[in-house]
Amino acid sequence: MKSLVVNCGSSSVKYALFDMEGEKKIAWGLIECIGLKEGFYSRQTDKTPKIKDALEIKNHTQALELIINDLLDKKTGSISDVKEIAVIGHRIVHGGNVFSEPVISDENSKEGLRKCFDIAPLHNPSNYEGVLAAEKMLPGVPSVFVFDTAFHQTMPDYAYMYALPYQYYEKHHIRRYGFHGTSHKYVSQRAAEMLKKSAKEIKIITAHLGNGSSLTAVKNGKVIDTSLGFTPLPGIVMGSRSGDFDPAIIPFLMGIYPELKEPNALSDMLNKKSGLLGIADSSDMRGIIEAKSKGDKKSELAFKMLCYSVKKYIGAYFAALNGIDALIFTAGIGENSAPVREEICKGLEALGIEIDLAQNQRSGDERFISSANSKVKIMVIPTNEELMIAREAVKTLSNKK
Amino acid sequence: MKSLVVNCGSSSVKYALFDMEGEKKIAWGLIECIGLKEGFYSRQTDKTPKIKDALEIKNHTQALELIINDLLDKKTGSISDVKEIAVIGHRIVHGGNVFSEPVISDENSKEGLRKCFDIAPLHNPSNYEGVLAAEKMLPGVPSVFVFDTAFHQTMPDYAYMYALPYQYYEKHHIRRYGFHGTSHKYVSQRAAEMLKKSAKEIKIITAHLGNGSSLTAVKNGKVIDTSLGFTPLPGIVMGSRSGDFDPAIIPFLMGIYPELKEPNALSDMLNKKSGLLGIADSSDMRGIIEAKSKGDKKSELAFKMLCYSVKKYIGAYFAALNGIDALIFTAGIGENSAPVREEICKGLEALGIEIDLAQNQRSGDERFISSANSKVKIMVIPTNEELMIAREAVKTLSNKK
Repeated sequence: MKSLVVNCGSSSVKYALFDMEGEKKIAWGLIECIGLKEGFYSRQTDKTPKIKDALEIKNHTQALELIINDLLDKKTGSISDVKEIAVIGHRIVHGGNVFSEPVISDENSKEGLRKCFDIAPLHNPSNYEGVLAAEKMLPGVPSVFVFDTAFHQTMPDYAYMYALPYQYYEKHHIRRYGFHGTSHKYVSQRAAEMLKKSAKEIKIITAHLGNGSSLTAVKNGKVIDTSLGFTPLPGIVMGSRSGDFDPAIIPFLMGIYPELKEPNALSDMLNKKSGLLGIADSSDMRGIIEAKSKGDKKSELAFKMLCYSVKKYIGAYFAALNGIDALIFTAGIGENSAPVREEICKGLEALGIEIDLAQNQRSGDERFISSANSKVKIMVIPTNEELMIAREAVKTLSNKK
Repeated sequence: MKSLVVNCGSSSVKYALFDMEGEKKIAWGLIECIGLKEGFYSRQTDKTPKIKDALEIKNHTQALELIINDLLDKKTGSISDVKEIAVIGHRIVHGGNVFSEPVISDENSKEGLRKCFDIAPLHNPSNYEGVLAAEKMLPGVPSVFVFDTAFHQTMPDYAYMYALPYQYYEKHHIRRYGFHGTSHKYVSQRAAEMLKKSAKEIKIITAHLGNGSSLTAVKNGKVIDTSLGFTPLPGIVMGSRSGDFDPAIIPFLMGIYPELKEPNALSDMLNKKSGLLGIADSSDMRGIIEAKSKGDKKSELAFKMLCYSVKKYIGAYFAALNGIDALIFTAGIGENSAPVREEICKGLEALGIEIDLAQNQRSGDERFISSANSKVKIMVIPTNEELMIAREAVKTLSNKK
């Protein structure tokens, strides 16, 4: 049984085809710059090396057409008939408070998704376009929407509500939603397996640290809090996003810079010019660590700010959970940056968190990095959102049957 | 030796005269609605009961004149000559990054204070007007500026910087400052005394919970982090202030409500229409607890949101401090609301925090409310900002001599 995972951005399509026997990724690729004169299409399979072409790709439908044709290619393709694809799992960014779990695409769920356009105007319409394109290209193959927000829908109201005028919640559904849900869910399940426990009997904090980042408090398999919010801006310091700051700085700045009264300009400043980039002129943690090692003070500051913001969230969720069994690091920085993990865990002995510096130095693979004395297990678990979406799609389909 | 404490708002003057032998408050009062047709003047002394008059008071100078004349009154006054007042301590809201400790008023410090007008346009100009009025009414009596921000000036850069474009810090001094510093300092010192330790050898979290609220992490007598920021908006849920929320909600709301592009309107919404008031239509915790007990769901939500936001800050600062010796509650809610303290401390055993429910029920006085098993001492300490300002004024004066 094969499951195709599709992730459509405004000008991109990322895909992966899984053979669910053995959960093996057998073909994957990326189409970029859709709608521009020069687009890019790179793809590979478990049997063939990466190919990258430059070509014009007009829209998402054409992108899907290219992908399907390649999957069906007599020589290098991974399937001989589209009917081999049992289900398509679509990554959908924002399920609002309409969707608390994956759903099969039909007229009802599509209408629900369209209701969530307002709340994520940059992402949801593109995701939706991808759904329509896939349905056009693969008629008869069921599609499942897998929401980046769904795993967080178990938060209690006092954790997801903001202390803003209540009407904004009633009229515009303004509340904390959280993102990276598929990643947090994947590593939560892997953590339970590695700890040889049921997910339902452990309390963990998952730290998804990448260019975008979030921490999530998971109690007995259910999210009770997460650091991203209504949008993917708040929480810890990110590549180019501010994370938390005093929101009253905004009216102060608007008084000085009238251009910030324009919502898009303000949003751009907060999402694209802040974070590590705002402090140290680079959004790349490797570059920051290198510059810091050469004595660059702003890079050192940016590094410390990011780590300290994570440390505080660990403390906050440690309190919310009344202690934890494990702390999980995942995603680009979480999996690969030993200095970041070390700085975060340093001085958390009072929480029972003690890192093993040697284990921490090793790279990439799934492992424990806590010391023998550490009450809390510290783990590195490479995330696998694609596999999780493939699984969710299959599971949702079989639940329906 | 007598020390006069003056706290000037835009239309009010609050004062207290202390006899520093025994640190006894001997006269105090409040003038309100300065500049309106009907103002109010209430005052009392340690020997005479409270009197309240309605009268027109044109400006701060006239207010100070009224106060001084009453202090000198042959029958009911507390002094016979203004020379008995050794020093005036002025509460100044914002010292920016110009002032890290109290200073004597002179041309230099006044210029420094004027430089901090931009950063606190609602408060600092009124504070300054009070200084000028007092100097006019009490020529020759030295004035000391005691800043609400000064105690927090020991924060490390990674705790006070925001991950916004760096130029905002360079050009406009946008960073975390923190407020309620005088209160946090007072209770920190009292906590050390009650613990029979030096302030320099303990790690504590002070929770100043009132209409405005802040938590502060104090390590060896020095602040390392605090929950208020550039302004008194962020941090925990307050009476009518939002506390932390996803700042990207602001551009989203501006797209729907163009009136929020006006900085004052936006600021008003965040500072005056949010917090408990925004959720439950009341900014008063007693009213909320009463409504909650009658089954009002929004009051219950507001109560839980406030307590949960405090709980998370306790966790965050517990991590930042790598464990704490004591947790201190102070100010209106912190001193008087047993249900709030109970809800905050519930389920924090993993941090070594265990409340004694019987001790917690007692009201008002300075005491320990932790259980015998609690690793962390939990304390209620009524704050005394006026006395602290009086002390700081005397100390600053004597340091100069």
